[in-house]
Amino acid sequence: MAVLRIGLAQVDVTVGDLEGNLRVIADCLESARAEEVDLLVFPELALTGYPPEDLLLNPSFIDANLKALQKLIPQTKGITLVVGFVDRDRDLYNAAAVLSDGKWVGTYHKAKLPNYGVFDEYRYFRPGQKVPIFTDGRVRLGITICEDLWHPTGPIEAEVRQGGADVVINLMASPYHRTKGAEREAMFATRALDYGVIVAFCNHAGGQDELIFDGRSSIFTANGELLARAKSFEEDLLMADVDLIEVLRHRLRQPRLRLAPTTTEEEYSVPEIPLPRPLVSEQKSSGLKPRIAFSPQGPEEIYRALVVGTRDYVQKNGFERVAIGLSGGIDSALVATIAVDALGPKDVIGVFMPSRFSSEASRKDAHKLAKNLKIRLLEIPIDEIFDVFLKALAPFLDKKAPGKTEENLQARIRGTLLMALSNRFNWLVLATGNKSEFAVGYATLYGDTAGGLAVLKDVPKTLVYELARWRNSKNPVIPKRVFTRPPTAELRPCQRDEDDLPAPYSALDPILQAYVEQDRSLREIVQQGFPADVVRRVIDLVHQNEYKRRQSPVGLKITPRAFGKDRRFPITLRWRSKSDEP
Amino acid sequence: MAVLRIGLAQVDVTVGDLEGNLRVIADCLESARAEEVDLLVFPELALTGYPPEDLLLNPSFIDANLKALQKLIPQTKGITLVVGFVDRDRDLYNAAAVLSDGKWVGTYHKAKLPNYGVFDEYRYFRPGQKVPIFTDGRVRLGITICEDLWHPTGPIEAEVRQGGADVVINLMASPYHRTKGAEREAMFATRALDYGVIVAFCNHAGGQDELIFDGRSSIFTANGELLARAKSFEEDLLMADVDLIEVLRHRLRQPRLRLAPTTTEEEYSVPEIPLPRPLVSEQKSSGLKPRIAFSPQGPEEIYRALVVGTRDYVQKNGFERVAIGLSGGIDSALVATIAVDALGPKDVIGVFMPSRFSSEASRKDAHKLAKNLKIRLLEIPIDEIFDVFLKALAPFLDKKAPGKTEENLQARIRGTLLMALSNRFNWLVLATGNKSEFAVGYATLYGDTAGGLAVLKDVPKTLVYELARWRNSKNPVIPKRVFTRPPTAELRPCQRDEDDLPAPYSALDPILQAYVEQDRSLREIVQQGFPADVVRRVIDLVHQNEYKRRQSPVGLKITPRAFGKDRRFPITLRWRSKSDEP
Repeated sequence: MAVLRIGLAQVDVTVGDLEGNLRVIADCLESARAEEVDLLVFPELALTGYPPEDLLLNPSFIDANLKALQKLIPQTKGITLVVGFVDRDRDLYNAAAVLSDGKWVGTYHKAKLPNYGVFDEYRYFRPGQKVPIFTDGRVRLGITICEDLWHPTGPIEAEVRQGGADVVINLMASPYHRTKGAEREAMFATRALDYGVIVAFCNHAGGQDELIFDGRSSIFTANGELLARAKSFEEDLLMADVDLIEVLRHRLRQPRLRLAPTTTEEEYSVPEIPLPRPLVSEQKSSGLKPRIAFSPQGPEEIYRALVVGTRDYVQKNGFERVAIGLSGGIDSALVATIAVDALGPKDVIGVFMPSRFSSEASRKDAHKLAKNLKIRLLEIPIDEIFDVFLKALAPFLDKKAPGKTEENLQARIRGTLLMALSNRFNWLVLATGNKSEFAVGYATLYGDTAGGLAVLKDVPKTLVYELARWRNSKNPVIPKRVFTRPPTAELRPCQRDEDDLPAPYSALDPILQAYVEQDRSLREIVQQGFPADVVRRVIDLVHQNEYKRRQSPVGLKITPRAFGKDRRFPITLRWRSKSDEP
Repeated sequence: MAVLRIGLAQVDVTVGDLEGNLRVIADCLESARAEEVDLLVFPELALTGYPPEDLLLNPSFIDANLKALQKLIPQTKGITLVVGFVDRDRDLYNAAAVLSDGKWVGTYHKAKLPNYGVFDEYRYFRPGQKVPIFTDGRVRLGITICEDLWHPTGPIEAEVRQGGADVVINLMASPYHRTKGAEREAMFATRALDYGVIVAFCNHAGGQDELIFDGRSSIFTANGELLARAKSFEEDLLMADVDLIEVLRHRLRQPRLRLAPTTTEEEYSVPEIPLPRPLVSEQKSSGLKPRIAFSPQGPEEIYRALVVGTRDYVQKNGFERVAIGLSGGIDSALVATIAVDALGPKDVIGVFMPSRFSSEASRKDAHKLAKNLKIRLLEIPIDEIFDVFLKALAPFLDKKAPGKTEENLQARIRGTLLMALSNRFNWLVLATGNKSEFAVGYATLYGDTAGGLAVLKDVPKTLVYELARWRNSKNPVIPKRVFTRPPTAELRPCQRDEDDLPAPYSALDPILQAYVEQDRSLREIVQQGFPADVVRRVIDLVHQNEYKRRQSPVGLKITPRAFGKDRRFPITLRWRSKSDEP
């Protein structure tokens, strides 16, 4: 046996926290060394956290990141480590350092820079053109960073064809959206199979603002089979033994790559860099059984993403407790449940703020939920405040029937009360609006949008129900009636969401998905079977409410396109549905 | 004489408004034809407005933009027109169409795509590699788009060296920051001189969200002299006659370019495209005198930028009137003055909302300002509302001395009152915070940050005073005492800004400029003469308050780096001053 023991250090680091991240890396290094790991891989930009955004434009941050890397070098005696950092010559590079046996052996620069969706890498980095092969004389190792391996050709092709790589590793910062884990796994299996090499990727775990990293770091054999997989969403150190002889035998059986060459010789240079210590050992007792961790699917996957995203946002920003306005409805019930799963019941405070329009059912359901979740519930009635506001405004408002002004006023009183509690007790307020509401602006700016994090900002209303049902199937904490009562904001008598919205949620959500996530035209959406006037109204509302979304809290991304860095629209915009008549 | 009459159509279009923009273009076309213009140039992406951002990802928008361009073609009988639009093959291009005598003659694709600062062009476009020369057999015309000509080499070099261009035009969308107009002018003069060609650029005028386009479209002679300049900030149609014989003579006198060649032959292809009608005419009576419009400088330039940015934000978003919380302080006084200059006094409403902590001086100054500006002033006292809030919260708040909670509460009551008026009367609320406050978070989220547009978000406090002084020098509308009283939020007895802030504004502003705009390190700022503990505190406050800025209204960019698209920082960030000890 010629065994290479690979370790994938799936860490949850914090952007900018060079000292803390260095500590996390050093701890993993010790654990891996104890397990006789030969090659230990960390995620993309593990040293700085991902994404550092414009902190990269600060030269002293780049200096500090290089100093931190220097501190790591002497700690690599007896092991080979690959870690993401920011390299600099005249330009900056999204880079991987190979440190081995106390030496900085070489560096790889990311060649394919993503500049779409949530990514802005051309803003900071220059693409690399050198793809070194690292070798101990027996095994040949190629390195790639995230996007590099999302392209069927590119660095991996040069590494395999020109450099004869046996193993290609990938340092990754691949943000979660629903089902992405499975898609990523299928794609990386294909890369391994196409090129007949072992492929191992190491992703981040945990949340960073709107992004959630789902981990699931994996190793694939040269014929594309999943050999090992780390946990989803959590930190993990995944280890597996790779048999070099098997890789080479596989190559002999399948001497041709499955793909015709596309990379021209000049595109990448492929220098060879010797490693100061062997990666492969004969002696190793290969008692290590590769582990394939369970990965959740469907509503469970999304629910866990939201729990991790909430926990990390709260904790990495230095908060212990959160406050949530509980209305008795489904959105706030789900947010409270997620918060309790993220932080525990003692660190979640519910605040019920009834008005003359609140029903007894709402009060009972809010209290029942709080009891089921074992959280504190404060009750602060708002009627008196509402009346004093109306009195102060009376000389200036004309005598119209109460309308949006009065409805928004109630929502803003609630937002102000929550923020007062937040100011006094340092509780982070979690906003409870969902994606359907944010899309069409069915929310009061500075009212129910107030808060530090909008947990459901990327969760359409119909998915809110699905997640709540799934969570209740484990342990029924959300009262039954919350599922069956028609959704209402309770800002006027007998109000129902579906009277205010252009369509019931069951139609609104697929229209929004088609328009917001898939860039479908009015014509195409109408062809899917929705009435043209409804679709038109939805599109117009989406654009008219950009200003509300721009001032709303950051929300956790769980779809291919979230409201946030993912979707950048002007506020001043005169493109409306009529510009695109079917 | 062989005269080419160039027209630069410096328009103020709206993003997404294809129909409206087409109308603006057609109107300019008629005016230019009446003046016998041979070559009429519009700004970059004039058809779509700039920047369309993710609207570009919507295929039906691209279709509609191509249809709009088609409609323009038959209108170009007897004239040659160059207009910015979005071209598409498999990819999208930031493009210029050359339409001449009723035919679409050819297309230029922007070669250098900016992806820094406020720009994200790699997100949407593919760079062009073809730089055609358009010719009527006598004059040779090269086209460039904005960034293309900010590089000393690139397309212009290929056009001149390989294509023998006599005239290079530039379609521009160059957002304003202070002194940029003058820098741009100096640079384009250099390009004309370096390459010995006539250079003419056409910029946008007016505001688009945070961006202000300052116009100043200009034409430079082949020896780098300014021949003509359009107005600053406003729409304008600039026309000038260029004598081709003079250009050619100039070339004969100075047969060599001032620069050594840098563009390799393969980088760009330079096809020649014939024009269906002559650009140059002998007969033209050259009675047209080139006009060099006045361009404001210093505080006047910035003040006018803010006026235009405010006017366009309000009007393009469909509002007529604005409401401003007048505190009696300098910030709100300046915002009200700018609003009156932008919209006229009848469309500006001041709202004075005193509490027990408001001084008589504040009331008097607010009223005096309103009187001087001839605007309506509403007075809504907030004490009763404040008391009822405190009563509602009393069972939950511990009995601490009043602090931040109570201060923020007052600010949020004011924000809520302004928003109620906004909801009822459709007044857009203008927020009055300045850049110094936004930088260190000296503002209440959902309180004084509430509003649709933060007019002074990019104006440091010391510049607020300078702008107010300049405006008063024209006509003293802001009461004298507003300049001399120490700034205060009046949220507690005897409060003064400078007691709450880490340094007086005279020190705070240069520290902020060094850190936020210039990416200086702690060490460098301390070397400029500021105490290390103060600088450290400022840096930490800047990072701690990212969450407030992210939920604050869009603000008008007037410095090289504004809080907005220009500066992208994570909220979750553990990079602090201590990470960078001097």
